[in-house]
Amino acid sequence: MLAGGVGAARLLRGLHSLLEPRQLTIIGNTGDDDTFFGLHVAPDLDTVVYTLAGRVAPQYGWGVRNDRFACLDALGRYYADTWFQLGDADLATHIFRTDALRHGQSLSAVTRAIAAAHGLKITLLPMSDEPVRTFIHVDGRGALPFQAYLVKGRGRGRVRKIEFRGARRASPAPGVLRAIRTADIVVLPPSNPLVSIGPILSLAGVRHALRTTRARIAAISPIVAGMAIKGPLHRMLRALGREVSPVGVAQLYKDFVDAFVIDRRDAQHAARIRALGMRVVVTETIMSTPAKSRALAAAVLQEVSA
Amino acid sequence: MLAGGVGAARLLRGLHSLLEPRQLTIIGNTGDDDTFFGLHVAPDLDTVVYTLAGRVAPQYGWGVRNDRFACLDALGRYYADTWFQLGDADLATHIFRTDALRHGQSLSAVTRAIAAAHGLKITLLPMSDEPVRTFIHVDGRGALPFQAYLVKGRGRGRVRKIEFRGARRASPAPGVLRAIRTADIVVLPPSNPLVSIGPILSLAGVRHALRTTRARIAAISPIVAGMAIKGPLHRMLRALGREVSPVGVAQLYKDFVDAFVIDRRDAQHAARIRALGMRVVVTETIMSTPAKSRALAAAVLQEVSA
Repeated sequence: MLAGGVGAARLLRGLHSLLEPRQLTIIGNTGDDDTFFGLHVAPDLDTVVYTLAGRVAPQYGWGVRNDRFACLDALGRYYADTWFQLGDADLATHIFRTDALRHGQSLSAVTRAIAAAHGLKITLLPMSDEPVRTFIHVDGRGALPFQAYLVKGRGRGRVRKIEFRGARRASPAPGVLRAIRTADIVVLPPSNPLVSIGPILSLAGVRHALRTTRARIAAISPIVAGMAIKGPLHRMLRALGREVSPVGVAQLYKDFVDAFVIDRRDAQHAARIRALGMRVVVTETIMSTPAKSRALAAAVLQEVSA
Repeated sequence: MLAGGVGAARLLRGLHSLLEPRQLTIIGNTGDDDTFFGLHVAPDLDTVVYTLAGRVAPQYGWGVRNDRFACLDALGRYYADTWFQLGDADLATHIFRTDALRHGQSLSAVTRAIAAAHGLKITLLPMSDEPVRTFIHVDGRGALPFQAYLVKGRGRGRVRKIEFRGARRASPAPGVLRAIRTADIVVLPPSNPLVSIGPILSLAGVRHALRTTRARIAAISPIVAGMAIKGPLHRMLRALGREVSPVGVAQLYKDFVDAFVIDRRDAQHAARIRALGMRVVVTETIMSTPAKSRALAAAVLQEVSA
């Protein structure tokens, strides 16, 4: 699986309940990573870990369950900006990651250690060991780091361009291309194709590996009934002149996806997606409970295993 | 004031209630500093700040009042050693200090910022901007970093030697020697003379400045009735072949202290201390309440202002 944040983690909890952990390799977006208070925060990798470990805050889909914010409150004495919500237990992960990176460990090695510390037996790979940072160019406000755009700015403003700074110099992390080439199935979860999956696809060789792998590739639409399930994707698609529908998403993946999963509410789009050369699965896609995650994961596996 | 940890902070709360904050300059020991989880922790400086800001945990005399340990608990997933008690709000100070030092700020500048962030108008100087680390050489266990000796090892084992690693290369921080030379009064609180005041005295020029300043210098015995008020000082003195009494402490300071303050329970030692060339004040020295801190501070000021 290529993974963004919450949508990916919710599908993963379904796949994780159906497969052996060792069958699962997750390639996580690091374009959303940022440094707060000198600590390296990797929101998408952590959301995967916390979700699979059963420790995610259920009301948000990110962060640690029942976490408190005493440290962040106290950081407010020293810093003007404390808008990025880092809970006390969550901070331990960022402190450890920062410490290990400063000691010369790669992000791959640190991520492996974090997953293991949470008892996970899946393979979790950051997309790259080198820094790639997503910047959102917003009308009148210049290029904003992704978290500043999404969290501080609440995803407001007209998006002019999405930039993956550093992507041209960065290589996929060890194991990323091999995982894609040797997989039986590749899944693109209902994550934002522009800012969650996009940074992974921007790395040298990834898109080529997806086009040429023998794996069957399934993607799930993050647009349902004309809206993003979460986040500002519909506004981004519109601002970039793309169709705000599963078709608009399918077009972004048309060179490598075999099967495209859409919600029942979007059944009317099936024919246009088939015209892009994909099979179409119509099912329930909103993973509001673990049972729904499992049902969607089963539907995806059934389609691509067929 | 030269300052160690809790004893210094308790006397300071008394002085702080009697003097204008701008009259107070505190030179804090940094030999106890250590790095935990990649974060620079400066226990003595922080104890001064938290105490004067009214935020110290009253039951310990260090750390932040009502602090919780959710982050430290979570760090236990990633690290084997979590014996150094860092509370959630307290961690904010170490995160900020570490971040600012990494950005090239001096420890002096960071310490000034921390004190200001807590609304303090006193001058708090670290003894040096360069690293000096206290190591305790313990029979059969080699050289232990101070916190490992004191907190992890609970001050057990026979002390062979106390080493201030880095002290020969380190200079006093800007303002330290000038503060001593231009003060009206210098106070040595009832801190451990070997490991709290000792590192400050070990820096080039500090002892000379104390010997030659026009200030009157008062010291308060941290040994009362044959025991250290707090910590392993009595065991250290004994192991190093020194007398475990106010006299043993006074001997360490005899080249520069004018007035030595001892507890009523130690009145019998007064004559031997006078024989070292000091005046002696006999009073209540256990600062178990703010009122007692204030009374002791008043007694010290009265003696050296006379």
